Amino acid sequence: MAQNWQERPRPQRLEGCYEFPSYAELRDFLDSAAELSEREGLYPDMGFGRDYVNITIHADENSDALGEKQRRFAELLDELRRSTDGD
Amino acid sequence: MAQNWQERPRPQRLEGCYEFPSYAELRDFLDSAAELSEREGLYPDMGFGRDYVNITIHADENSDALGEKQRRFAELLDELRRSTDGD
Repeated sequence: MAQNWQERPRPQRLEGCYEFPSYAELRDFLDSAAELSEREGLYPDMGFGRDYVNITIHADENSDALGEKQRRFAELLDELRRSTDGD
Repeated sequence: MAQNWQERPRPQRLEGCYEFPSYAELRDFLDSAAELSEREGLYPDMGFGRDYVNITIHADENSDALGEKQRRFAELLDELRRSTDGD
């Protein structure tokens, strides 16, 4: 299981949240996440403000259950977050 | 009053939604909106997926009521949406 994520039922989904020390880092993360979405063909619901990004990854349209694709995407987002971490 | 926006009470806020024909146009809009946020010092809550952006503009932290700054920001976002509209 990827870090920062919780699995929720009805409908089954993965919910994650990241915090950011600066808006510049948050923007870098959103840019990289958008590129990842285009590469993987997976477009989660994203919510953000000045210092946080919330993400909900749903199952494929034609499925009720999360699959390997969704779980891998969550892990890739965790990797992105680490790589855009300015510390 | 700006287009595409509704004013809601408790807490007072402006809610708006835009739809996009392509993810590329949506990304252009988000980039421009982030630049606008940095320029104006106003960071609304944004939610987006593959083809939509929802925006909630709250009052300033030290105020219960929306002011001219918030209403102007909504109008500037409408202008941005028109300028990033590929049609």
